[in-house]
Amino acid sequence: MLKDVEISRVIVENYMKGLLDSLTVDVAIVGAGPSGMVAGYYLAKEGVKVAIFEKKLSIGGGIWGGGMGFNKIVVQEDAKEILNEFGIDYKPFRKGLYVADAVEVAATIASRTVKAGVKIFNMVEVEDLVIKDGRVCGVVINWTSVKMAGLHVDPLTIEAQYVIDSTGHEAQITQHLLKRGMIEKIPGEGAMWAEMGERLTVENTKEIYPGLYVTGMAANAVSGAPRMGPIFGGMFMSGRKAAKEILEKLKK
Amino acid sequence: MLKDVEISRVIVENYMKGLLDSLTVDVAIVGAGPSGMVAGYYLAKEGVKVAIFEKKLSIGGGIWGGGMGFNKIVVQEDAKEILNEFGIDYKPFRKGLYVADAVEVAATIASRTVKAGVKIFNMVEVEDLVIKDGRVCGVVINWTSVKMAGLHVDPLTIEAQYVIDSTGHEAQITQHLLKRGMIEKIPGEGAMWAEMGERLTVENTKEIYPGLYVTGMAANAVSGAPRMGPIFGGMFMSGRKAAKEILEKLKK
Amino acid sequence: MLKDVEISRVIVENYMKGLLDSLTVDVAIVGAGPSGMVAGYYLAKEGVKVAIFEKKLSIGGGIWGGGMGFNKIVVQEDAKEILNEFGIDYKPFRKGLYVADAVEVAATIASRTVKAGVKIFNMVEVEDLVIKDGRVCGVVINWTSVKMAGLHVDPLTIEAQYVIDSTGHEAQITQHLLKRGMIEKIPGEGAMWAEMGERLTVENTKEIYPGLYVTGMAANAVSGAPRMGPIFGGMFMSGRKAAKEILEKLKK
Amino acid sequence: MLKDVEISRVIVENYMKGLLDSLTVDVAIVGAGPSGMVAGYYLAKEGVKVAIFEKKLSIGGGIWGGGMGFNKIVVQEDAKEILNEFGIDYKPFRKGLYVADAVEVAATIASRTVKAGVKIFNMVEVEDLVIKDGRVCGVVINWTSVKMAGLHVDPLTIEAQYVIDSTGHEAQITQHLLKRGMIEKIPGEGAMWAEMGERLTVENTKEIYPGLYVTGMAANAVSGAPRMGPIFGGMFMSGRKAAKEILEKLKK
Amino acid sequence: MLKDVEISRVIVENYMKGLLDSLTVDVAIVGAGPSGMVAGYYLAKEGVKVAIFEKKLSIGGGIWGGGMGFNKIVVQEDAKEILNEFGIDYKPFRKGLYVADAVEVAATIASRTVKAGVKIFNMVEVEDLVIKDGRVCGVVINWTSVKMAGLHVDPLTIEAQYVIDSTGHEAQITQHLLKRGMIEKIPGEGAMWAEMGERLTVENTKEIYPGLYVTGMAANAVSGAPRMGPIFGGMFMSGRKAAKEILEKLKK
Amino acid sequence: MLKDVEISRVIVENYMKGLLDSLTVDVAIVGAGPSGMVAGYYLAKEGVKVAIFEKKLSIGGGIWGGGMGFNKIVVQEDAKEILNEFGIDYKPFRKGLYVADAVEVAATIASRTVKAGVKIFNMVEVEDLVIKDGRVCGVVINWTSVKMAGLHVDPLTIEAQYVIDSTGHEAQITQHLLKRGMIEKIPGEGAMWAEMGERLTVENTKEIYPGLYVTGMAANAVSGAPRMGPIFGGMFMSGRKAAKEILEKLKK
Amino acid sequence: MLKDVEISRVIVENYMKGLLDSLTVDVAIVGAGPSGMVAGYYLAKEGVKVAIFEKKLSIGGGIWGGGMGFNKIVVQEDAKEILNEFGIDYKPFRKGLYVADAVEVAATIASRTVKAGVKIFNMVEVEDLVIKDGRVCGVVINWTSVKMAGLHVDPLTIEAQYVIDSTGHEAQITQHLLKRGMIEKIPGEGAMWAEMGERLTVENTKEIYPGLYVTGMAANAVSGAPRMGPIFGGMFMSGRKAAKEILEKLKK
Amino acid sequence: MLKDVEISRVIVENYMKGLLDSLTVDVAIVGAGPSGMVAGYYLAKEGVKVAIFEKKLSIGGGIWGGGMGFNKIVVQEDAKEILNEFGIDYKPFRKGLYVADAVEVAATIASRTVKAGVKIFNMVEVEDLVIKDGRVCGVVINWTSVKMAGLHVDPLTIEAQYVIDSTGHEAQITQHLLKRGMIEKIPGEGAMWAEMGERLTVENTKEIYPGLYVTGMAANAVSGAPRMGPIFGGMFMSGRKAAKEILEKLKK
Repeated sequence: MLKDVEISRVIVENYMKGLLDSLTVDVAIVGAGPSGMVAGYYLAKEGVKVAIFEKKLSIGGGIWGGGMGFNKIVVQEDAKEILNEFGIDYKPFRKGLYVADAVEVAATIASRTVKAGVKIFNMVEVEDLVIKDGRVCGVVINWTSVKMAGLHVDPLTIEAQYVIDSTGHEAQITQHLLKRGMIEKIPGEGAMWAEMGERLTVENTKEIYPGLYVTGMAANAVSGAPRMGPIFGGMFMSGRKAAKEILEKLKK
Repeated sequence: MLKDVEISRVIVENYMKGLLDSLTVDVAIVGAGPSGMVAGYYLAKEGVKVAIFEKKLSIGGGIWGGGMGFNKIVVQEDAKEILNEFGIDYKPFRKGLYVADAVEVAATIASRTVKAGVKIFNMVEVEDLVIKDGRVCGVVINWTSVKMAGLHVDPLTIEAQYVIDSTGHEAQITQHLLKRGMIEKIPGEGAMWAEMGERLTVENTKEIYPGLYVTGMAANAVSGAPRMGPIFGGMFMSGRKAAKEILEKLKK
Repeated sequence: MLKDVEISRVIVENYMKGLLDSLTVDVAIVGAGPSGMVAGYYLAKEGVKVAIFEKKLSIGGGIWGGGMGFNKIVVQEDAKEILNEFGIDYKPFRKGLYVADAVEVAATIASRTVKAGVKIFNMVEVEDLVIKDGRVCGVVINWTSVKMAGLHVDPLTIEAQYVIDSTGHEAQITQHLLKRGMIEKIPGEGAMWAEMGERLTVENTKEIYPGLYVTGMAANAVSGAPRMGPIFGGMFMSGRKAAKEILEKLKK
Repeated sequence: MLKDVEISRVIVENYMKGLLDSLTVDVAIVGAGPSGMVAGYYLAKEGVKVAIFEKKLSIGGGIWGGGMGFNKIVVQEDAKEILNEFGIDYKPFRKGLYVADAVEVAATIASRTVKAGVKIFNMVEVEDLVIKDGRVCGVVINWTSVKMAGLHVDPLTIEAQYVIDSTGHEAQITQHLLKRGMIEKIPGEGAMWAEMGERLTVENTKEIYPGLYVTGMAANAVSGAPRMGPIFGGMFMSGRKAAKEILEKLKK
Repeated sequence: MLKDVEISRVIVENYMKGLLDSLTVDVAIVGAGPSGMVAGYYLAKEGVKVAIFEKKLSIGGGIWGGGMGFNKIVVQEDAKEILNEFGIDYKPFRKGLYVADAVEVAATIASRTVKAGVKIFNMVEVEDLVIKDGRVCGVVINWTSVKMAGLHVDPLTIEAQYVIDSTGHEAQITQHLLKRGMIEKIPGEGAMWAEMGERLTVENTKEIYPGLYVTGMAANAVSGAPRMGPIFGGMFMSGRKAAKEILEKLKK
Repeated sequence: MLKDVEISRVIVENYMKGLLDSLTVDVAIVGAGPSGMVAGYYLAKEGVKVAIFEKKLSIGGGIWGGGMGFNKIVVQEDAKEILNEFGIDYKPFRKGLYVADAVEVAATIASRTVKAGVKIFNMVEVEDLVIKDGRVCGVVINWTSVKMAGLHVDPLTIEAQYVIDSTGHEAQITQHLLKRGMIEKIPGEGAMWAEMGERLTVENTKEIYPGLYVTGMAANAVSGAPRMGPIFGGMFMSGRKAAKEILEKLKK
Repeated sequence: MLKDVEISRVIVENYMKGLLDSLTVDVAIVGAGPSGMVAGYYLAKEGVKVAIFEKKLSIGGGIWGGGMGFNKIVVQEDAKEILNEFGIDYKPFRKGLYVADAVEVAATIASRTVKAGVKIFNMVEVEDLVIKDGRVCGVVINWTSVKMAGLHVDPLTIEAQYVIDSTGHEAQITQHLLKRGMIEKIPGEGAMWAEMGERLTVENTKEIYPGLYVTGMAANAVSGAPRMGPIFGGMFMSGRKAAKEILEKLKK
Repeated sequence: MLKDVEISRVIVENYMKGLLDSLTVDVAIVGAGPSGMVAGYYLAKEGVKVAIFEKKLSIGGGIWGGGMGFNKIVVQEDAKEILNEFGIDYKPFRKGLYVADAVEVAATIASRTVKAGVKIFNMVEVEDLVIKDGRVCGVVINWTSVKMAGLHVDPLTIEAQYVIDSTGHEAQITQHLLKRGMIEKIPGEGAMWAEMGERLTVENTKEIYPGLYVTGMAANAVSGAPRMGPIFGGMFMSGRKAAKEILEKLKK
């Protein structure tokens, strides 16, 4: 016989065990968009302990809507191998340019990222950073719903060796540094120029403050590089690059 | 060289080709929640032409939040084989009761459903039915954003042999029949009783009006059967049952 | 040395332990207003396991504002001993009528209720009942913030032998019975008539459906008895009466 | 026999053909107000390929309401020939000053502008510019409804040799340059002074950045020139002037 | 020299002269959508004194957005001559089915309707009817902005021999009769069925109460006939039919 | 017999006659609060042509609510004669301090101001100034409701020799000068200090820009002088002072 | 010297003295619109103790805006003497029809009503009635701001021999009787018909339940009589009639 | 017999007596959060006349929600004696770290603070300071509901020798100094670092301007010190420190 309260028990116990286990992680990623999930995937694959905090109920960030809600996205040659790695279908459009289904991309990346061992905490907002002696060493979390409801409720903290700001063009996490004068400015994303933007996204992926990486559009926003619309190769490669760099540092 | 306008072109062309191709389908499913996606998966697997219309930007319905935002869900013995079919991981809690990660469940079902050939049109709301001579033969669609923005814009129509109302406990599609006196009442979901609710969800999955099936919580709402919280076996089996029945009818 | 993450750990562990422990209680009380807290106090004092679910962030219901925000409240002779029981100060106004400070009343009752052993879960909304075979046997809970934010997230359930609807004049819990045709009507509170209302509040405190008690203004709303404004003796006595009746039944 | 799905097909096919055809245009005009439509008319009349993007569902901008909703507008002698060109009725008020019906003006200009070959995309918002190597070479578009609904959806881009900012006193397109430090400031429209404002509107109509023209009130806002209320001669002449200058450049 | 205050004077004087002149009209039409404007056009062409009251700032109703914002509309063979009458361009899609540009249709009808002599009062809401001795003999008007702003301001009245409810599927004017028990029910538009809806729109165009005509979707809503999406032939023919019937009655 | 349309006619004609007559006035006062109405009263009494524009539906500004909604106000000795001039009752509190009924004060001042010949245009917002060659020479008006409704509608203008900013502590009219760099700063009202504030209100009443006076709290806001709460003597005296100074200038 | 706290003291003391004095009145009037204030005036003139409770910050109800914001109102012959009684100016329009300034009418009636001895409590909402043994014997009041802010705060009560519902066409006070089945229905105001409405307003002014009178549009709403727009003679006469009838009863 | 109006009388009289008595206090505390209430408690215990103004309906500030709504809070060794002083239960977590129930903490502190003689005025917002000759000497109060409702109503003032800003991280009272250039900047709370934040909270508790103290998170915000989450020892000690310092100054 199935008792209603058993369902409550198993859910509360499992979530809490997961949450307690994730209070201290190697890498805390903020934002389950394309660059954040890809970074998480490549880290977890190597055995790194990763938690992603996503403020929305669902993951995927800006992938779902494709361009103007026409739910297709574009990926260029350089990033094709990442689509292959995740097992996502695509169709060539012209030499070096591929089109994929936005729903498949978002769902498949998320599915594979979780299977790789990443813990995703959705509906959880990162409202601040933990910073000690000039180094980011964790994030401050709260329920998104509590924020949306305008309730005055204290947050909790997560301890991490590295934090990744994958929050897109608002660079919400890096804003906390700016607000406190720890960095000088966040110029914001530049005007549209897909080719340039794609290239710079990867270049701009870096540790902008001890312990804090930026990826994807957050990387471009922090550097004032161009935006690029519904093309995602740069996003994927940015995530992979951040993963690679952090892996090396963690090994030391 | 990558031209910005190429990205626009490939996206518009591919979406439109997909939309034009889906103007006439075998089965139109409303709601990309658990029962709707599972139904779509089993239908598409058999070569049926299926489109799912989901009003949100992302898919998954009520799965993501688990119970109270503790993102785990429960599945019972009967539905374990469906988890296996989709390749979703789970952990036994006690005999016959399993717990799975909500994010993995939502993402993996969506990923597999698209790969099986289902076209998912997210951000698209079904605002009415096409009914001719006493038979549902299509749905009336519009952008969700147009509805949210309160703009007065006419919809388009999709032609389908069968429509599935997988919109959850509001049974939004079936409401259109009620509003016009074509069915007598929609009692709404009953009080919580997980065991009874799980069983009845499957029983209540049926063609409630020529051409219109109800699945999942919509099935229970239409029949006044109990609600059951974050346990999803019944949802999955309801989707599979609807697929099976429609498959048989389509073969005739 | 104090580690940030320790604070998170101790809070999560203690809350979760409390929540898991409260998944099955003797009495679940909905609403931490005057009648609900008084009922909880008298039950817990006798060793009954009680949880109160309060949708607001703070407790106290309609006490804080006194009348029109003039934060004083009135209590009549009959209820004076309950003020004494809680150690609340009061001042005679005329024979048989006392005035007390609204903030002191709300805070002191809450303080003493928790000390008596009642677990109060604030910011938690009861969105439905668990009903099996014609008996209320639990409540369905969710975060208030999730409701306020309009997110679609499944609830959890609490198992209880008795549920008390102390939600005030809206009788929110009893409404679930009405919505499903399990009771015939909820006439709502009558026009203002303090003397009559005070008397009837206590009379109307009863088990209106197997397993479900109503207290305070919910009792009057369910019976169509008059409202009475910022006089609270009836509220206190209603809570005490419900406690007494349930205690007797639990002993059997 | 008329099939519902045929209506969908013809609409989708024709819109998409039009949209694909307009992905690359000679001139992209932002805002279907008086100066934008007049500019489009004079350009299209000479065979230039023009698309107007209007964020509202309807066109006409600030014309419809006349002054304070009293739906009449004023035009002075200099612009009379443009009214004649469009076939709009007017009545002399005193020497050199004419009054016309606001609804007729808005509707007739739009009607004639479309007939002249301009493609108007209404309900489409220009959210940014495409800028490469110091030259504006396109606009970034999205559905207005998506913006109004607050959804996070990527835009598409339009390629153009010239872009005209006809967005009125907010100069919304030119703001993107300011935000990125590409121009120094946008002083905003000056206090009311109709005579001066009318004259300066035409003077201020110019290419303020390689590839970007400003017309109408956007021209005055960018130059800090006075506002002028419900008199529209300057608007019309500004649109015509921009068309003339761009025509000459395109011929080279 | 141009004085600012002259602009105010000419606008106020001309609007007021127009408004005072329209306080008593032959026909008051509510809603400047397709059927209302076409009705007004055919009436004014025959010298009938007509005022249209439109609650929005712009006219055109549901035409602008085409289907789902794809701004094209469909017209069938029967209504082609009305497109010709207005001078609207169209393209054949298949035998008997034509596609036209939504912006051109809306703007051109409005332009021609005003030129035919109809006074259009936009931003003016009809909030009630004048009814005396069982006959509708006028409308009650107010600024839409006053309603939107929630201000409590009395309306004014317009005297008319006939009133036409062209308010679309809400049949807002006819609702005033229902609310007062003067008609029995308004079933609302039926499910989508374009062919049937188009035919019935014209059939349902009639005087439903002495002095009150319904046209377009209001006619179908009042009769429970099907809706039909972005096909407008029925709308146009409904407006023309109402004009014809009223013309005959006015001649008597 | 009373015809409905006669009511419309008499109202439209009389309002319009009044509005046309007020398009050119000697003094335009913005805000029908205490200082604005008192200024208008003393000006009109001397035969000056005055119009007051008030954005709310009702007049009186901050008088109605007294202090915290306790609807009494205080006036000191110096301003007693103004209460006498208006025929307002008051009661001494202690030497030199009087208390009056807020409703009586607001209503009586308005009643007497209109009787003195001032035209009050309520529900009309001043959205800008007319400025020519360095002198304020009018105001730009619109319906408040149009602003509240967020509609994009052009304003009209009023010509005046002097404009008075009586808009209270926001100094809304003077803000237009600041925005355009015509004055250097508006420090805003200082912290509460009733005695000092009362005195400075009168001192700060002056022509701050050619053609523009400030009175009441606007005068203090512009000068950074203290606020003073529900004491109104300074307001009254400020209005009277502005009237006196303008009268002298107009005589020249 | 003027101390800030003295201002607080005099205001609190005077308001509270007034409020305590008005806890028991002869007549409580709800709504400071035209009929309510006129009723209060004629009652107070005869020495009756009257309090008016007005939910808005200012008084005057629907008078201020005239018709469509054109701030003039109409009064017919029968009510001219009431204008004279209050000392309001008016201008003849045609035989038996007069036009007056809306601001003057609202302000002057309020000014005179307070001077006649009526206490007006603005910003105070009547949220219910006190009813004992089948007779209305008071009203239940709260701050409007508390209601607007959605705070859960208990009300206070006022004791009265008679209550007048002058709340306009919503008949808000009489609705409390309907809600509790004490009267059968409130048909609401009929369609516009000024002449009939004016006559019936006076006829319908009556004691509709022991202790409760209705006046003005509330009287018509309760009887289903026509509405009449910005003509106020019936309103004034209704107020006077209610005053006369209550005076007679109070004398007994 | 109990008369309804007696309840009104006793409440109004007692509140007003309390308010009049509190118009002049020794210490006015803004914000009934942990540091404000603790400060009030220690002051009142020594016979100081204290009023706390709290803008919410209930007291407790950020205590109720614990961390993320998990309603437990943490207190460290140093502050244990304050828990003991208030009689609050706690449980050791590890050496020097205790966990307590958030509801009990909030309610018990409030209960004891009122009993110690502090007057708490809830639902009352401090909207400004009284400042004379360079010293804070009072606060400016209004109903929170009036602010929430957006009504334009003047405030009242409270006279105090010392004011404490206990408004949390927004330091709302100190902001009034910043706005007027009386202090140079408010850096805002720093990033999370519990240990450092706890220590600095006490250090930063001081008189930042003659007559104005800051406590709790307001103290850290004013000094740019770190935030610390749901640990409250620093809050308690900050309140006690402020009390101690003010006591000494008052004795002089």
